[in-house]
Amino acid sequence: MELKGELLEKASKVELLVMDCDGVLTDGRLYFGQSGEELKVFHARDGQGLVEWHRAGYRSAIISGRKSPIVEMRAGQLGVEFVIQGRNDKAAAFAELLEMAGVEASVTAFVGDDTPDSAAFPFVGLSFAVADAHKSVKAAADVVTDSEGGRGAVREVIDLLIEAKRKSSAGE
Amino acid sequence: MELKGELLEKASKVELLVMDCDGVLTDGRLYFGQSGEELKVFHARDGQGLVEWHRAGYRSAIISGRKSPIVEMRAGQLGVEFVIQGRNDKAAAFAELLEMAGVEASVTAFVGDDTPDSAAFPFVGLSFAVADAHKSVKAAADVVTDSEGGRGAVREVIDLLIEAKRKSSAGE
Amino acid sequence: MELKGELLEKASKVELLVMDCDGVLTDGRLYFGQSGEELKVFHARDGQGLVEWHRAGYRSAIISGRKSPIVEMRAGQLGVEFVIQGRNDKAAAFAELLEMAGVEASVTAFVGDDTPDSAAFPFVGLSFAVADAHKSVKAAADVVTDSEGGRGAVREVIDLLIEAKRKSSAGE
Amino acid sequence: MELKGELLEKASKVELLVMDCDGVLTDGRLYFGQSGEELKVFHARDGQGLVEWHRAGYRSAIISGRKSPIVEMRAGQLGVEFVIQGRNDKAAAFAELLEMAGVEASVTAFVGDDTPDSAAFPFVGLSFAVADAHKSVKAAADVVTDSEGGRGAVREVIDLLIEAKRKSSAGE
Repeated sequence: MELKGELLEKASKVELLVMDCDGVLTDGRLYFGQSGEELKVFHARDGQGLVEWHRAGYRSAIISGRKSPIVEMRAGQLGVEFVIQGRNDKAAAFAELLEMAGVEASVTAFVGDDTPDSAAFPFVGLSFAVADAHKSVKAAADVVTDSEGGRGAVREVIDLLIEAKRKSSAGE
Repeated sequence: MELKGELLEKASKVELLVMDCDGVLTDGRLYFGQSGEELKVFHARDGQGLVEWHRAGYRSAIISGRKSPIVEMRAGQLGVEFVIQGRNDKAAAFAELLEMAGVEASVTAFVGDDTPDSAAFPFVGLSFAVADAHKSVKAAADVVTDSEGGRGAVREVIDLLIEAKRKSSAGE
Repeated sequence: MELKGELLEKASKVELLVMDCDGVLTDGRLYFGQSGEELKVFHARDGQGLVEWHRAGYRSAIISGRKSPIVEMRAGQLGVEFVIQGRNDKAAAFAELLEMAGVEASVTAFVGDDTPDSAAFPFVGLSFAVADAHKSVKAAADVVTDSEGGRGAVREVIDLLIEAKRKSSAGE
Repeated sequence: MELKGELLEKASKVELLVMDCDGVLTDGRLYFGQSGEELKVFHARDGQGLVEWHRAGYRSAIISGRKSPIVEMRAGQLGVEFVIQGRNDKAAAFAELLEMAGVEASVTAFVGDDTPDSAAFPFVGLSFAVADAHKSVKAAADVVTDSEGGRGAVREVIDLLIEAKRKSSAGE
């Protein structure tokens, strides 16, 4: 995946990376035990990407339709600033996030995999669908990643954003 | 996958979606710990599909050969109306389900992956095998999905059914 | 995969199916928690195959290099008659198994994925390597399955054996 | 994958195999429960490779950016001599390891998947990236394996090293 033209320019401006959780930071598998959802399975290389993204001075947020204390914990480890859970009305949740973060939509990217995510796409700066997203979400997104959710898709987005910033500041 | 002709017409009439659990709503992996089966691993995008299916006014059922309280719990979360477990005689269990639901076989679809499922296929309205079903089940099914069990096969079936209804009501 | 000639004839005679556990009945992943190996992940369609194999009057055995009570439990559920664990000297363990079962090597099949398994191959009736076995094991086996370990390889072997018996009794 | 020329010669000299954990000995998935990281998922065929490597008289080490008692336990089972955890400054940790092990860099191999690993590559004898490593790590490595992390990549490296030693002592 390589960004060009207007998409590259939009990517170079992103300061707040917004991610769905299940299907984006995980591969969409929900591990249920006798007492409910027991495990969330993240990926080490996505985590490394988020660490690098925050170290470069940028911010991130998770908007999840489901609710799990595991997401709070993992977000805390990685320095994800905003965690909004239990919200399937993602366009509304995204609007509230802009308020909280004090940024314009034009400096945001949103990574999603399913229909509640794509409902927010019209309002975000740059929208990404993971490789294995629902077909309607892939059709609606500005960019479809080469990597699947939970298998490096978030890292790929971060690499693209950082590369866009590098090119932009190099005047390419 | 795209339905045409008679299959499309049958799909447009489905009101009750019947699913096997292991290998259909999961990828067939059975997670055993020291005290028995510990986890069932469902998929977020299948769950979203079932939520949309029920919201559109349709019903669903699970007929599983194995028995697990986890299946009851997940079914409850998603609004699956009927959960029949511990039944490998799926043709008989399906007949009982028709009785309970008060519907004709012609308005049912059945999604399966293994030989106990295909035993019910002759009695259902429209039969689906997941992409990685046993070869005899794929041979017996009306439709084979592009997606594997536990990896979006149920969502794909729901998309096909809803699209068939849309086309039917649009007179296509 | 289709068996022909001498391999088909050998397959038609198999009465005792011997399987490695990790990498054959599982996909080789070892799930460790704080207190040791916590989960073994089997596959529903392999289980269904073993149920059908036993129902047809044939027997089975597991010879595993590792040791886990989970293997005993799963074997009990499926009707696997012999479970030999903690043995990496699989040729010797196989010789003891023949003694216990009271059968000749010529009526056995052995499914393996790694070098301790292939050490037993010269002594068994018909040897199978799973699709993702170690390359030396694939080179040593009579047959390499199309399916990977823990993803239907055992079911594929059982299908091949039962089909060989059918052809043999039909005089094909 | 087959090593030739200078890479083959370097491989024939390796006595200490250094591995990252997440993404190399595992597939990079991080299994979180309510109380933190609950599982580490290793692969049986990697374990068998390490057993053979140690039996042949060679040594191994793990340098991990994360910290888990599970890694200590698994390393102990397999005879991994050095376990260094919680270190993302892998070049420095590697230098300390050389000191502890009392060996020269020229007799080491290092297997990695992400940017903290490739920071150590300039200082090691022979560097390997797993098939699904970050693209920058694959670009920096001497060798990229055919196998993915947690799915046999370490076994493949060990096979390559042992084959190189065999060829070298045979004067090939």
